[in-house]
Amino acid sequence: MEEKKQRYFLEISYDGTAYHGWQIQHNAISVQQKLHEALSKILRQNIETTGAGRTDTGVHARQLFVHFDVDIIQDEKRFLHSLNALLPSDISANRLLAVSADAHARFDATARSYEYHIHFGKNPFFANRSWQLRDIPDVDKMNQAAHYLLGTQDFGCFSKAHTQVFTNICTIRHAEWVWEDGRLVFHITADRFLRNMVRAIVGTLLEIGMRDSAPESILNIIQSKDRAQAGTSVPAHGLYLTKVVYPYIESN
Amino acid sequence: MEEKKQRYFLEISYDGTAYHGWQIQHNAISVQQKLHEALSKILRQNIETTGAGRTDTGVHARQLFVHFDVDIIQDEKRFLHSLNALLPSDISANRLLAVSADAHARFDATARSYEYHIHFGKNPFFANRSWQLRDIPDVDKMNQAAHYLLGTQDFGCFSKAHTQVFTNICTIRHAEWVWEDGRLVFHITADRFLRNMVRAIVGTLLEIGMRDSAPESILNIIQSKDRAQAGTSVPAHGLYLTKVVYPYIESN
Repeated sequence: MEEKKQRYFLEISYDGTAYHGWQIQHNAISVQQKLHEALSKILRQNIETTGAGRTDTGVHARQLFVHFDVDIIQDEKRFLHSLNALLPSDISANRLLAVSADAHARFDATARSYEYHIHFGKNPFFANRSWQLRDIPDVDKMNQAAHYLLGTQDFGCFSKAHTQVFTNICTIRHAEWVWEDGRLVFHITADRFLRNMVRAIVGTLLEIGMRDSAPESILNIIQSKDRAQAGTSVPAHGLYLTKVVYPYIESN
Repeated sequence: MEEKKQRYFLEISYDGTAYHGWQIQHNAISVQQKLHEALSKILRQNIETTGAGRTDTGVHARQLFVHFDVDIIQDEKRFLHSLNALLPSDISANRLLAVSADAHARFDATARSYEYHIHFGKNPFFANRSWQLRDIPDVDKMNQAAHYLLGTQDFGCFSKAHTQVFTNICTIRHAEWVWEDGRLVFHITADRFLRNMVRAIVGTLLEIGMRDSAPESILNIIQSKDRAQAGTSVPAHGLYLTKVVYPYIESN
C-alpha cells in the first residue's frame, strides 16, 4: 500500500524578465519548469506543482503560491536553503507550509493583488521592472475612474477575446494609484482576474488620465462588455503579482 | 582655421551587470564603448569621452560624469532624448552641461561617493544589484571601526597590489553603515579612492562585524599598509558609484 503523501504550499517570488511566463510549456523556458527541475532534483522524484494562477511573459511575482505532494519533509529550513541554492538567482523559494490534503493553490485563493509600476525619465535600474512614460497623467482623474471599478461587475471589456471562462464577473475590492518614491504605482485587489485584465485596466485608466475624457467614461466601457471599447494593454514588464490570499495561510 | 569646440559634461547612470566595467577595452563590452557609439552616431563624428573614474565589471553607477568636446549642441533636451533612445536600456544620459574648455571630469572631481548594498535571504529583485549574506553582522561594531577610517591617511592596505599610483593617501570624509528598507547599506565619501578600495574596506569591516575582533583592530590594518592584513574584497555587484562632486557643478 502506498504511503499517504503530505501536501505542501510553497511561496515563491520571481523576476519574470527571463521567462516565458509562469506556466510550463514546450519550447520556452518558464518559471514553473525551473521550479519543477529544482524540486525534482532535491526530492529525488518527479515533482509537479499547481500554481495560484498564471503570469504572462515578463510579468513579475513577489508572492505566488504553488502546491505539491510528497513524503514529509523533515527539515523545512534546510529544504528551502537547498532549493534556493538550486534555483536561478531570479527565482526564490520563501516559505514551505504543510497544508491539508484538499488544500488547493488555485481554487482556494480568495484574493489576489497586483501592482503596476510606471516611471518617468529613463532609469537603468527600472529597465524590465517598470514601464517608462514621458508625460505625467492626471492621477486624481485616474483615481476617480478607478473608483468605478470597485464591486462585483462583469469585466468582459477587460478580458482577452476568445478566452474560455465560465464568467467574466469579478469583485474588485481595491483599485488606486499611489506615488511611491517618484514612481506611479497602481494597486488592485480582486477575488479573481480575467486574462490580461490588469494590463487592460491600467491602459484604460491611463488613456483617461492623458486625454480629455471624463472619469465617468469608464462606466460606458464596463457596460459595453466590449474589449474594443477599453484602452490598449500596457506592457508586461511593469506588472507584479504581489499577494495571494488563502483563508488558512497567514499573510506576511 | 578650425572652429573652437565646446566642452560638455554629461551625467550618466548605468546598471553594470552586462558590462566589463566602465573603461573601453578590446574584446569586451564596456559602458564607455556603448556611450561612444551612441554619441558618435548622434553627433556624426568620432566622439571620445573622459570619465570621472573607472568602475569594475558588474559595478553600477547612479552618477558618473564624462567630458567631451564638440560643436555647440543647440537643443540639449532633444539631444538627451535622442541619446537615451540610442543607448541600451541599462545606460541612461541624465544631464548635459556646457563647461569651460579646461574643465576635466577626472582631475576636477573633489569628492566621490559609493554605496555597498547587502541583503539577507534570497530576493530575485536584488540579484546582480546587492550582495546576499546569510548572517547579520554586528552593525554597531562595524560603525565603530568605520569611524577610524575618517581623515587623511595612507590606505595602501586597501589597495590592489602592483597598482601604479603616486600616493595611497586619501581623505575619507564619511563612512557609515545604515539600514535601508531591510537592506544594510555602507556609505562612503572620499576625495579619491584607490583601485578596489571600497570592496576591500567593506570586506574588512564585515570580518570585524562577523568575528570576535575589536573595532580598533582596523587601526593595525591601516598602519600595516599591507593588503594581506585587510579583509577579502566583497563581490562587485553590490557596489554603486553614487555621486561625483565638482566645484562648478550643482549636485542634484
